[in-house]
Amino acid sequence: MKKLIAEFIGTFWLVLGGCGSAVLAAAFPELGIGFAGVALAFGLTVLTMAYAIGHVSGCHLNPAVSIGLWAGGRFEAKELLPYILAQVLGGLVAAAVLYVIASDNPAFELGGFAANGYGEHSPGGYGMTAALVTEVVMTFAFLFVILGATHSKAPQGLAGVAIGLCLTLIHLISIPVTNTSVNPARSTSQAIFVGDWALGQLWLFWVAPIVGAILAGWVYKYLSPEK
Amino acid sequence: MKKLIAEFIGTFWLVLGGCGSAVLAAAFPELGIGFAGVALAFGLTVLTMAYAIGHVSGCHLNPAVSIGLWAGGRFEAKELLPYILAQVLGGLVAAAVLYVIASDNPAFELGGFAANGYGEHSPGGYGMTAALVTEVVMTFAFLFVILGATHSKAPQGLAGVAIGLCLTLIHLISIPVTNTSVNPARSTSQAIFVGDWALGQLWLFWVAPIVGAILAGWVYKYLSPEK
Amino acid sequence: MKKLIAEFIGTFWLVLGGCGSAVLAAAFPELGIGFAGVALAFGLTVLTMAYAIGHVSGCHLNPAVSIGLWAGGRFEAKELLPYILAQVLGGLVAAAVLYVIASDNPAFELGGFAANGYGEHSPGGYGMTAALVTEVVMTFAFLFVILGATHSKAPQGLAGVAIGLCLTLIHLISIPVTNTSVNPARSTSQAIFVGDWALGQLWLFWVAPIVGAILAGWVYKYLSPEK
Amino acid sequence: MKKLIAEFIGTFWLVLGGCGSAVLAAAFPELGIGFAGVALAFGLTVLTMAYAIGHVSGCHLNPAVSIGLWAGGRFEAKELLPYILAQVLGGLVAAAVLYVIASDNPAFELGGFAANGYGEHSPGGYGMTAALVTEVVMTFAFLFVILGATHSKAPQGLAGVAIGLCLTLIHLISIPVTNTSVNPARSTSQAIFVGDWALGQLWLFWVAPIVGAILAGWVYKYLSPEK
Repeated sequence: MKKLIAEFIGTFWLVLGGCGSAVLAAAFPELGIGFAGVALAFGLTVLTMAYAIGHVSGCHLNPAVSIGLWAGGRFEAKELLPYILAQVLGGLVAAAVLYVIASDNPAFELGGFAANGYGEHSPGGYGMTAALVTEVVMTFAFLFVILGATHSKAPQGLAGVAIGLCLTLIHLISIPVTNTSVNPARSTSQAIFVGDWALGQLWLFWVAPIVGAILAGWVYKYLSPEK
Repeated sequence: MKKLIAEFIGTFWLVLGGCGSAVLAAAFPELGIGFAGVALAFGLTVLTMAYAIGHVSGCHLNPAVSIGLWAGGRFEAKELLPYILAQVLGGLVAAAVLYVIASDNPAFELGGFAANGYGEHSPGGYGMTAALVTEVVMTFAFLFVILGATHSKAPQGLAGVAIGLCLTLIHLISIPVTNTSVNPARSTSQAIFVGDWALGQLWLFWVAPIVGAILAGWVYKYLSPEK
Repeated sequence: MKKLIAEFIGTFWLVLGGCGSAVLAAAFPELGIGFAGVALAFGLTVLTMAYAIGHVSGCHLNPAVSIGLWAGGRFEAKELLPYILAQVLGGLVAAAVLYVIASDNPAFELGGFAANGYGEHSPGGYGMTAALVTEVVMTFAFLFVILGATHSKAPQGLAGVAIGLCLTLIHLISIPVTNTSVNPARSTSQAIFVGDWALGQLWLFWVAPIVGAILAGWVYKYLSPEK
Repeated sequence: MKKLIAEFIGTFWLVLGGCGSAVLAAAFPELGIGFAGVALAFGLTVLTMAYAIGHVSGCHLNPAVSIGLWAGGRFEAKELLPYILAQVLGGLVAAAVLYVIASDNPAFELGGFAANGYGEHSPGGYGMTAALVTEVVMTFAFLFVILGATHSKAPQGLAGVAIGLCLTLIHLISIPVTNTSVNPARSTSQAIFVGDWALGQLWLFWVAPIVGAILAGWVYKYLSPEK
């Protein structure tokens, strides 16, 4: 139970921090943090929680991460469902808190919140093929780094830095394509508030990250079989 | 006494570095560092002092941190008052030094200095509800990360990185809402120079961070009871 | 064989992340990440892979790095050719994936992709002398830091941070001059897609990085002879 | 002798990286790295060299650092002069290399290079009082962090991160005031190329950093007397 509370709080922080910086601060006139600031914020949610709850729950904060770790032989199947539920729930509560904050402003418009999308809902107008390739490859790389940095032969203690900054890197590359998901819980949390097209495109942000994560689990297990 | 001098110098650095970057460099024409640069500066004041004085005083630099650590069972009640006094004093001296530097410029106007505010004094025009929710939740997360990263089961030596960058993250999210406090000493130091509305709104930047900090102390103690 | 797969995946990530952020996100209207974001992305590809595959292949991801390590007495000559082939191949596949993503956009134009160049193909209009000096000196410093940070007397575990951020630093300085190479595999991957002038100038981005790397190997071996 | 070569190369890298990013990349149209990018670059020159040559020479790269470490009881007086000479020489050679690169461009104008200044030569128009206070206080904080992070009770291995990012922080605050020195070797290297007013104001960028450094040495020795 403590593990699930930790995953709930951690994913809450990931969505509040990442999507919150996007909604509240990215496009602030003159002084806004832009895509680079949002990329840093997403990464730092993971970096900070890795040190806060890594020793409690492993700090997955992401259904694709839990599934990729299972594929790589590092996580038990029976824990998958409760972890994923806690993550999705944490994301939803964060989206609600973000809504409360953002809407206490005379100029508030929901717009696309920080939902993920492709085609006309891609920030830069990229199509579904680009979105699929991007989300599969980015999640592959994310899990590959997670599996590597937490391997027993990797330098101890630095995994949280490498993994957090990997999420920053992924956002530096791919916000223009899909607004960057690599995390179905994060995508779901925003899509539910936006409804409509965001729910219609949500399937891609479950399928592609999970496919990329499973591939990474298999490849890394071949490359470095010991845990 | 050495602990108090360390807290004084550390909080001096937090306010001079964080508020100083905001006042002097954020809005510099063309080349200014923006909110993202200020966020980085605030975080780095804590990161740098964590390694400089962590082994002297614990490097709190913030009344909410001292109180949250007390709520989490990591700090003794009898040390609270002297720590908080040293922190507030360090912040005030930093604000004075910043005033000396900033005012030695023909174009100087005090304006809002780097004070925290809500309603018409929120950088982005957010109301009191948004401010309260933001400051409680952000300080909750800050203390949660502090308690986690300094826990005996967390990787040793990296706590200063995680905690400093958590303050960066908090600023990336919330500067548009309240100019980001999560630190009553930082808020007080600026409000005294601005007077007027800044003193009138100062209560929120004591109450909300302390509430968030105490909640985090309780929750983390439940999740991970050993020190 | 596992080492070569690791180098292939790692260099794939370096090119997809570094050149991808440049092509997709650098110049996004209003919110783009600029040269600083691209610099961060390049560095983080190395930082993340250092922890993921450092214990598998050493994480070179760059022919100049492999050659510089050989010159410094840290890598065997017989491994040079297979490593370099795996790196070039990884870069090429990354360029192809980036092409698939970037071209799934109605507004796509190949332009210079993220190719390196000098003279009229230098981002800031710098000549061949500037390009040669820059690439030699930057690669010298890169290898000097790699050799130092992985030395047995340097703090263990932090090498990946220092080396990755060194690549970020190199890009912060020199993108305006040559679009920054210091890595013949990265340069080749882009030049093949651009053809024409990019292939005509490619020689410089093999010769200069290799010269700088060999010099660093010799100098560091003199300064700190033990491994 | 190896120590002096290391200090020479390290200070070369500090000036080439820090001043180079300022001259070549800060104000690049649309995509330039701004003051925040320059701040990051200066810090990363120290961070990277700390891991490369920390175990060779201690990686001072700055006369004020050598003098502050001497004042704090961590460095021998007889080594001061050779260290400072190697640092100044390294900075000068870096300025020459930067000149070769920057001038190989049809649009080149020397302007203020990256020299430090006050009054009409302050980037933001700050007067001499602001410059003196800023340089004394910033160098005080820099040495305070250096002395703390390298103390035997501080976490081992992280000092290079804390110290490098402290220099980043210092630049985030104070580039608008003096273009940030805290390092007489860096200031001298640029002033000699600019001549004129830059040489006339150079005294301040020797006196103020050294005063701040000596104060920090004394204060830190009082706070934490063991090495």
